[in-house]
Amino acid sequence: MPYEFDGATAVRADGAGRWSVDVAEGWDIRGNANGGYVMSLMAAAMRAEVERPDPVSITVHYLAPLVPGPASIATEVVKRGRRLATVTASLVHGGRETARAIAAFGEVGGSLEHAPFEHIGISPPDLPSPEECRRRSPTEGGVPLALMDRLDLRLHPDDTGFVTGSPPGRAEARGWFAFADGRPVDALSVLLACDAFPPPLFNLIGVPGWVPTIELTVHLRARPSGGPLRCRFVTDAMRGGTFVEDGAVWDGDGTLVAMSRQVGLIAG
Amino acid sequence: MPYEFDGATAVRADGAGRWSVDVAEGWDIRGNANGGYVMSLMAAAMRAEVERPDPVSITVHYLAPLVPGPASIATEVVKRGRRLATVTASLVHGGRETARAIAAFGEVGGSLEHAPFEHIGISPPDLPSPEECRRRSPTEGGVPLALMDRLDLRLHPDDTGFVTGSPPGRAEARGWFAFADGRPVDALSVLLACDAFPPPLFNLIGVPGWVPTIELTVHLRARPSGGPLRCRFVTDAMRGGTFVEDGAVWDGDGTLVAMSRQVGLIAG
Repeated sequence: MPYEFDGATAVRADGAGRWSVDVAEGWDIRGNANGGYVMSLMAAAMRAEVERPDPVSITVHYLAPLVPGPASIATEVVKRGRRLATVTASLVHGGRETARAIAAFGEVGGSLEHAPFEHIGISPPDLPSPEECRRRSPTEGGVPLALMDRLDLRLHPDDTGFVTGSPPGRAEARGWFAFADGRPVDALSVLLACDAFPPPLFNLIGVPGWVPTIELTVHLRARPSGGPLRCRFVTDAMRGGTFVEDGAVWDGDGTLVAMSRQVGLIAG
Repeated sequence: MPYEFDGATAVRADGAGRWSVDVAEGWDIRGNANGGYVMSLMAAAMRAEVERPDPVSITVHYLAPLVPGPASIATEVVKRGRRLATVTASLVHGGRETARAIAAFGEVGGSLEHAPFEHIGISPPDLPSPEECRRRSPTEGGVPLALMDRLDLRLHPDDTGFVTGSPPGRAEARGWFAFADGRPVDALSVLLACDAFPPPLFNLIGVPGWVPTIELTVHLRARPSGGPLRCRFVTDAMRGGTFVEDGAVWDGDGTLVAMSRQVGLIAG
């Protein structure tokens, strides 16, 4: 019995640099495929193309909303190097390009050669146990978030004020990420975790409406040893109708597994 | 009498989606064109292609070292939207692709419509005056940094320890960015500022050798009103032979004009 996320990110080779995918039902926010899911799907195709396991750097530009159904991904290998392979991807659905990506895949972590050069200058967020956190609901605040049926995403109780119209006044969202069906977390699912939390700005100004991602970049720093993932997202820059959101994701052993940054639009 | 940077980033239309450029002498680190300069050059071509002023998001993947001489940039418009135009660029020199970029151009700042939604959660670094800071030398630490003849880049006195083999033990580099010939700072030069400082990790572990950038992303947040630019770079994640470096750039009025993040390789 396969896990839902594996089915939703399956890619089938369809000729050189062509991949058939099915944008799955139920991985959406307000009916549009979640940006982290879109990144995971494109990463699955790029990873299959270059046959390297880890997205050391991956950037997606979101061009149009994406709805469920059959789609295709075109990949282009830019460079196959010794350490890294650089690759682009274009996701087309119904004749329209909905996302464009570029990534460098390789192997993260583990090089003894560089072991002396290890430094982590940030700490995982202090979180109550998952049981003491609040699970995000697929009907949170009256907004349809089907994605939250697929995930077991639990917010720090201090970061849920936006749901009831009482934002705490800090642009922060912290919590635990896991799959609802118990699928173990891996490199691909870390990408999903980087866009599954509420925009931290909701906890500063309330929910201004639709806040689509323009571009999301994730740097995988280590493969997660296990979950749930401990996550923190903040917005330190909001101005002129756009915002920057930074994320850090830690695994069950307290290892920093990813850093993310996105720029988004306050579309109202 | 044109400023040096304008000459070094001049692009000439050479057919649809084709641009001729000259990779200029003197904008290098150890003989290879600086990554910020490469980003500026590619941004100049992309900006000319889409005719939008500001890089709201720009990502460059560095594929090979780049030396001075004639080169070409191929641009492809991915999408022309109302607010943003998404565009890619490929820089080829001597028959070899040396960098691939993707960017979203638009107009930053200034929308009164979104004025209530303004929040900056980080502060500019506290710096002594430029006169009290230490100018980066083109022969710093015995390494040829021709770029430092083009710039007037001044480091916080507490962040220069790496030069003499006495790193202060913090992965931080702060200072002022200006051009040596007095050219005013603008959106394009902010991209250069994001890769002109010493890698902050030099101040933690000393100079481990060559630390090439794999990928650099810059989000322009506002056009600089004037200089010199007040900059801070930190590394909070170094492991397995790679590091993540975050930057924030502020203008003379104390406005946050850019945020940057790069992942680099400790190549030794």
